[in-house]
Amino acid sequence: MFKFEVLKTDPGTGARTGRIQTPHGAIDTPCFMPVATQATVKAMTPRALEEIGAQVLIVNAYHMYLRPGVQRVRELGGLHEFMGWSGPLVTDSGGFQALSLAKVSEVAKDGIMFQSHLDGTKYKLTPEGSIDIQEALGADIMMCLDECPPFPSTREYMEKSARLTVSWARRCREVRVSGDKALFGIVQGGVYEDLREESARDLEGMGFDGYAIGGLGIGESKEQRLRATGTAVQYLPDGKPRYLMGVGLPEDIARAAALGMDMFDCVIPTRNARNGTLFTNHGKVVIKNARYADDSGPVDEDCGCYTCSAFSKAYLRHLYLAGEILASILMTMHNLYFYSQLMTGIRESIFRGDFSGFKSMTGASGA
Amino acid sequence: MFKFEVLKTDPGTGARTGRIQTPHGAIDTPCFMPVATQATVKAMTPRALEEIGAQVLIVNAYHMYLRPGVQRVRELGGLHEFMGWSGPLVTDSGGFQALSLAKVSEVAKDGIMFQSHLDGTKYKLTPEGSIDIQEALGADIMMCLDECPPFPSTREYMEKSARLTVSWARRCREVRVSGDKALFGIVQGGVYEDLREESARDLEGMGFDGYAIGGLGIGESKEQRLRATGTAVQYLPDGKPRYLMGVGLPEDIARAAALGMDMFDCVIPTRNARNGTLFTNHGKVVIKNARYADDSGPVDEDCGCYTCSAFSKAYLRHLYLAGEILASILMTMHNLYFYSQLMTGIRESIFRGDFSGFKSMTGASGA
Repeated sequence: MFKFEVLKTDPGTGARTGRIQTPHGAIDTPCFMPVATQATVKAMTPRALEEIGAQVLIVNAYHMYLRPGVQRVRELGGLHEFMGWSGPLVTDSGGFQALSLAKVSEVAKDGIMFQSHLDGTKYKLTPEGSIDIQEALGADIMMCLDECPPFPSTREYMEKSARLTVSWARRCREVRVSGDKALFGIVQGGVYEDLREESARDLEGMGFDGYAIGGLGIGESKEQRLRATGTAVQYLPDGKPRYLMGVGLPEDIARAAALGMDMFDCVIPTRNARNGTLFTNHGKVVIKNARYADDSGPVDEDCGCYTCSAFSKAYLRHLYLAGEILASILMTMHNLYFYSQLMTGIRESIFRGDFSGFKSMTGASGA
Repeated sequence: MFKFEVLKTDPGTGARTGRIQTPHGAIDTPCFMPVATQATVKAMTPRALEEIGAQVLIVNAYHMYLRPGVQRVRELGGLHEFMGWSGPLVTDSGGFQALSLAKVSEVAKDGIMFQSHLDGTKYKLTPEGSIDIQEALGADIMMCLDECPPFPSTREYMEKSARLTVSWARRCREVRVSGDKALFGIVQGGVYEDLREESARDLEGMGFDGYAIGGLGIGESKEQRLRATGTAVQYLPDGKPRYLMGVGLPEDIARAAALGMDMFDCVIPTRNARNGTLFTNHGKVVIKNARYADDSGPVDEDCGCYTCSAFSKAYLRHLYLAGEILASILMTMHNLYFYSQLMTGIRESIFRGDFSGFKSMTGASGA
């Protein structure tokens, strides 16, 4: 049931547009995946997500594992049924959250030992366990367990870690059962190009349904990120989707799409919305600024989202300063619509063969 | 432009159903008005309010006065334009919030002296000032400034206070300018029936577009409330709408409708929703209860709201325990839909002539 097809490649860059088929429907690529951390994209109903054009969401396996529990979700019919989302879903392996949220006691050959950030309970997340969890959740695309070391890390640590991630990927691949769901390997290696190459080659050799590039967007420079991404892409097969994890700002997405990346996820549009920062084609809008107190215009005159069609900046500012839930709702709608339109623009410009022109334009989107 | 018509009176009770015409559309009565405290019904978009069947909202003048400021709202096109709600709007006088939220230094003949709960700024709210504020906000129905003394209050205090409220009502009536907007007088008098009678008679003598009964739902017994309401209603004209302020639970609304009350507002459905308590025709649902952890059914099998059509109790419980905004969104939708359906049921049963049967049924709605 899982299939990926490249429909058009941009003549001037490495960008391509295509379509992923999953048991729960199609995803047009390059795509942006809103982050449904705890089985909900914060402040958004599923129908609001459909309205802004979201085709696929990513859920954090770590959070589901701790609360409400994986067996519970399985018995309730799986993640799609549980959260009322009938489209494609991705789950991550749980590794990134275990390493960033929990108190980690050890990363060993066998897996990650951690204590829950909720109640301190001790867990061990193994590659096999991660696949068990993800198969129980029932998402359309699963990720191999990986270690994402902090930036900066020494070359010595990164080499050991990237090889550990490759060995975990092999184990994940071996234990997977579900045939209709995809499993992606994750390239690590930090900012070390030879490690990125080695990691990509090793994973490619095993044969995954798709390949992610992880361990970026965590403090390295934009140049380092682009170099690490560009290196890894060279050793990944053209016929499989490529997913740049956790990146990022509109211009970062456009630049990575130019390198041939197909899938993106990031909390930036949703988190920034809740913090009152809005994306527009004319630069960012920080809604709490006094200059918007009497501004009767929408966030973006050219935007077709519900927020911009019905509400002024002055009203959004009022809601934000008053701490109203509606501020988060309306600003999240706008930012996710902006990202959705960004991806549509990227896909259309690749189809038209003028992605380079589009890419230079998105430099203006700021934030 | 403001008009009220009684369409049908229930043969067995004092209940009646009718229609209020306002410059922003019609309101079918008896009606429930969701509370848009700070120019937003918490967690609800205007279109979600339309979907659940809300015809009219009430906004707190006190909050608008302090933030974002009345002149600002006026310059932004008035409250309807500001909050993106094109239907009828009611504003209260600001008195209740000044007395309940702010630090009040004095209630004198001239008005209420208070300090803002936001920043301690000192204000004086006079009857004339309250009408100025409400006319600037531009709602369809304005309320006279009143004093709502705490329960219990001595008869001596209550007598003085109810007469002060009547004198303020006279001043409010004198300074109003806008002819197309309605102004309601507010009957006070606590649980003292003779004071309720005197207050209602005095206001009726002045002639208002509608009459509210205030100062209830603040700790008195249900019996005291019904007696005070029933007494006041006797002295209010049949041809004008009657509004029971701040009440309440479904069964309280049904009982007051039986006395001939036409309009209701209360934070209960919205506040309870955010606290995880849901209304159903089979009793209340406290969503955090462990019994719902694996419950794949909707909150109410018979409910037609978005929440019940798409989500399980287990998912709502998860969202609530995880502190997710979507919990507030979905549960507010459900509770307001429940109230909207309650009012539809009341109106239809009055039309059918069997309101008594309906009323006894609503005793089961619990919470």
